[in-house]
Amino acid sequence: DTLVGPGDDCAVVRVKGSPDDWLFTTDPVIERRHFLPSTPARLVGRKAIARAVSDIAAMGGTPLWILIDLVAPASTPLSRIRGLYDGMIAAARQWNLGILGGDTAEGDTLELHITGVGRIPRGSAVLRSTAKTGDLIYVTGSLGASYLPGNRHHLLFDPRLEAGRFLASRHWATAMMDLSDGLAADLPRLLDASKRGACLEAAAIPLSRAARKTTHPLHHALSDGEDFELLFAIAPKHKARFEAAWKKKFPKLPATRIGAILAQPQERHLLLPNGDLAP
Amino acid sequence: DTLVGPGDDCAVVRVKGSPDDWLFTTDPVIERRHFLPSTPARLVGRKAIARAVSDIAAMGGTPLWILIDLVAPASTPLSRIRGLYDGMIAAARQWNLGILGGDTAEGDTLELHITGVGRIPRGSAVLRSTAKTGDLIYVTGSLGASYLPGNRHHLLFDPRLEAGRFLASRHWATAMMDLSDGLAADLPRLLDASKRGACLEAAAIPLSRAARKTTHPLHHALSDGEDFELLFAIAPKHKARFEAAWKKKFPKLPATRIGAILAQPQERHLLLPNGDLAP
Repeated sequence: DTLVGPGDDCAVVRVKGSPDDWLFTTDPVIERRHFLPSTPARLVGRKAIARAVSDIAAMGGTPLWILIDLVAPASTPLSRIRGLYDGMIAAARQWNLGILGGDTAEGDTLELHITGVGRIPRGSAVLRSTAKTGDLIYVTGSLGASYLPGNRHHLLFDPRLEAGRFLASRHWATAMMDLSDGLAADLPRLLDASKRGACLEAAAIPLSRAARKTTHPLHHALSDGEDFELLFAIAPKHKARFEAAWKKKFPKLPATRIGAILAQPQERHLLLPNGDLAP
Repeated sequence: DTLVGPGDDCAVVRVKGSPDDWLFTTDPVIERRHFLPSTPARLVGRKAIARAVSDIAAMGGTPLWILIDLVAPASTPLSRIRGLYDGMIAAARQWNLGILGGDTAEGDTLELHITGVGRIPRGSAVLRSTAKTGDLIYVTGSLGASYLPGNRHHLLFDPRLEAGRFLASRHWATAMMDLSDGLAADLPRLLDASKRGACLEAAAIPLSRAARKTTHPLHHALSDGEDFELLFAIAPKHKARFEAAWKKKFPKLPATRIGAILAQPQERHLLLPNGDLAP
């Protein structure tokens, strides 16, 4: 009954007789790894839920329920625990999720482990492994500097739920994932899963306002991670129709074409503005 | 769609049109809390899965799938990680579970967070909250000393899956839970959920062989925890038929009557061998 096991944004499970497939994902959020002791607890709670929601968005699904494992040192002030739950409850309201339960344990580090369960019409989950040679590569929004000082994108991002559902329900996207570790780390995962290569055009990669303020905007866009934008592939014959449909549906959210899928898995190039190809 | 949220062994979810209800549980297993640095990694992996399976058994359900969040310090030897997964994979085989996926993160402490998903025929989950006045209280197996030196019950216990299904499918049990924190801590949870009291007979409580070797066997049986036996209630009119059916179905696993449910929530007594009532 497991259509997709480990290795994609979510596992996909098919239950006999159900009109929907089921999506499962789990995400840790750990102090000093994913947030700082100084990060407001409400925003930590929000982020923990948003990461799981983003994984479900990356399949094209709709999140339904979450479970929460909390680990906390005995010395954690109760107000901080309350703040975490306030943030998680507000996020659950925003995305219409049921908090089913979970567990709590004492430990050395403050951690949240969120399990997300979602639903998608049978057979319409968009995987990482199904990009085809010649497909065009797109990314939503803009990339980079998501957690540089002064930028709270990594805490405040909106998972691309509507965009993911649009890309899945019309069968627009041939492959999709969310960008959690940065384009330079995540695209190779999609390519490995699809057994393909790719050429990216550096000048086309959409840079966030915060990245553009740095001395190396492209480096931040490729490597920072925590963008939580969607990376997806579109068949070239659908290019014009897709771009028109997208603009109509999401007038405020850009979907930018940044490259193309190549046949040879070992061909992974970045076309620089001066015309050189970098690996 | 959430029939049972936080507070029972599992959450219970009903999906329109499905012949089954769905069960969800999540359990942390943390080094120095639930196992020691010297505990063989295979047994830690086994225990992590078995705890989630026991939660599903305590509703009367059948476990189907698990997700695994691993947290590990960067210094963890790869052989230890392999041992954890060997143990989890063997446990998944034993109980016929699909490992759907999960996530990994670096952290200060070795931890497994297991999410378990199970199934139960619609409307047959046995809750903690439905014990009735006059019901008889039973426990499977024997209790106490599960992690005293030389006893590895807390690592090697067999979740009472068959027993739980039997108790749910015949609607024998009016209420049920598994014993993870010890009878003295867990029974009050069932009583609180059911808004009832109870009288336990100390001499009737089945003591494990390891507990009987200690100087205070009853104390260990009441307080140690990690027994992972089933605690359940049976309507008094079914007593004779239930006990006969149980003996036939489980000739090697005792189900021992240890007390009765009382009407008043504040009445919580332990009848001592000398005839005194202790709180």
